[in-house]
Amino acid sequence: MEKLEKLYEGKAKQLFATDDPEVLWVEYKNSATAGDGEKKEDFAGKGRLNNRITTLVFDLLAKRGIPSHLVKRVGDTAQLVRKMDMFPLEIVLRNTAAGHFCSRLGVEEGIDFDEPVLEYFMKNDELHDPFVNDDDLVVLHVCTRQDLAEIAPLAKRINEALIDIFAKIDVKLVDFKIEMGRTSDGTLLLGDEITPDSCRLWDQRDHSGKVEHLDKDLFRRDLGDIIPAYEEIERRLSELAASEGIAID
Amino acid sequence: MEKLEKLYEGKAKQLFATDDPEVLWVEYKNSATAGDGEKKEDFAGKGRLNNRITTLVFDLLAKRGIPSHLVKRVGDTAQLVRKMDMFPLEIVLRNTAAGHFCSRLGVEEGIDFDEPVLEYFMKNDELHDPFVNDDDLVVLHVCTRQDLAEIAPLAKRINEALIDIFAKIDVKLVDFKIEMGRTSDGTLLLGDEITPDSCRLWDQRDHSGKVEHLDKDLFRRDLGDIIPAYEEIERRLSELAASEGIAID
Ligand SMILES: Nc1ncnc2c1ncn2[C@@H]1O[C@H](COP(=O)(O)OP(=O)(O)OP(=O)(O)O)[C@@H](O)[C@H]1O
Ligand SMILES: Nc1ncnc2c1ncn2[C@@H]1O[C@H](COP(=O)(O)OP(=O)(O)OP(=O)(O)O)[C@@H](O)[C@H]1O
Ligand SMILES: [Mg+2]
Ligand SMILES: [Mg+2]
Repeated sequence: MEKLEKLYEGKAKQLFATDDPEVLWVEYKNSATAGDGEKKEDFAGKGRLNNRITTLVFDLLAKRGIPSHLVKRVGDTAQLVRKMDMFPLEIVLRNTAAGHFCSRLGVEEGIDFDEPVLEYFMKNDELHDPFVNDDDLVVLHVCTRQDLAEIAPLAKRINEALIDIFAKIDVKLVDFKIEMGRTSDGTLLLGDEITPDSCRLWDQRDHSGKVEHLDKDLFRRDLGDIIPAYEEIERRLSELAASEGIAID
Repeated sequence: MEKLEKLYEGKAKQLFATDDPEVLWVEYKNSATAGDGEKKEDFAGKGRLNNRITTLVFDLLAKRGIPSHLVKRVGDTAQLVRKMDMFPLEIVLRNTAAGHFCSRLGVEEGIDFDEPVLEYFMKNDELHDPFVNDDDLVVLHVCTRQDLAEIAPLAKRINEALIDIFAKIDVKLVDFKIEMGRTSDGTLLLGDEITPDSCRLWDQRDHSGKVEHLDKDLFRRDLGDIIPAYEEIERRLSELAASEGIAID
């Protein structure tokens, strides 16, 4: 597959066309951003780690009956994915109170919910990714009621599968953000990435009593170097994938 | 009915106990607030007008099969209502884009929606009445999934009835905020008030081409005196009520 012209450059990835109009080439960058883009730093090795992690997660999800846009990893920092029309949505699933949920609603971090919470945020930098509900999305024509009736159950299934995956590597899945889109034939698929940039992952092997973050909160909150944490996630996921007979190169 | 000790003083009303434990005495005040309580002013006659308007609206809703907490008006500024356990929610219905919806989502004011938009805001001054979705409310134990399955359809029915009522007096119902609660026997009822403080009402008799506000936006946006507008709403609703055979004193 040939890498052709650059189509888009985001904060964490670059998208390139390929000689197949249905396939995109994704390059994972080393940059990390936080706080609505106000905080920005480069971390050597982050692109490679996130590319490996998201590939492992998508493979582990596929084993659990959840397909994604992933075609295959094609290099240290590159992936081929099925090109989609993306919903301009951050689809957030929460199992435990953290971050924005806590500040918005005055709740203490770490409280486990009785059931998962699904929230939508519109991807719009100018408006600072506003929180929206189903009715908002429908009247804004961001998606239809029918789209939401597919998106919500898929998001919940992904959450169930991810909880299982991370529990198997002794990590608590606090919350995460995903994106979805439709392929040219209309199939709804999980897209974008699932990495420690987009998930809150709390180590359960740590017995110090305090939360050991294995995710971008290390950067957001200046709690330490992110690279060792991302390496740890990559290592554990690799072991799990191997134990499930998933071929990794 | 005897007016006993004061139970609560809000920004627009005071609540008093009565000799019936199931009944509250509500006093409508002359004060108006806006901008998260930052703007505050007294308007002579406002309490009397809002007391009359909310009584008329509740009577007109009752005629359309929608009961409320209203027992009866008992004076210029006072009303008896059925005491309820209130859901700490601002239940917002929108038919046309305006106000907060526009600033939050970058939409032009005045665009009519394809269908009504229902939004919930938690009544919490400290948190500035945060916008929440169904899942948030359920995990925060503000209400149950079953409560929401009653609240949402009732809110939509109230919207339909209010659109009809206001259309009959040549007023466009842009959006409004209501509150609901449960009586001691568990019945879900519309409570609080429905007044130009809590609705956006655009005059359709005005043919200047620009929006003629008959609501609190006059105060919020310094567009003019609110009292003549509230008087106009009271006058038109009185005529409508009379035409529907509703006894008003
Ligand atoms: N399968 C796909 N087809 C088309 N576009 C995709 C696909 N998967 C992800 N995308 C899009 O690729 C882009 C990835 O860019 P990146 O994540 O770096 O930046 P961003 O999402 O624009 O900003 P942010 O830094 O907030 O994530 C996103 O716009 C995402 O919606
Ligand atoms: N039937 C009822 N039983 C018990 N409480 C009620 C009933 N109807 C309304 N209330 C409550 O009465 C209070 C009315 O007070 P008021 O509207 O002045 O102030 P507020 O709602 O606290 O603040 P705001 O100025 O933001 O409206 C509200 O707390 C409302 O929830
Ligand atoms: Mg992104
Ligand atoms: Mg009030």
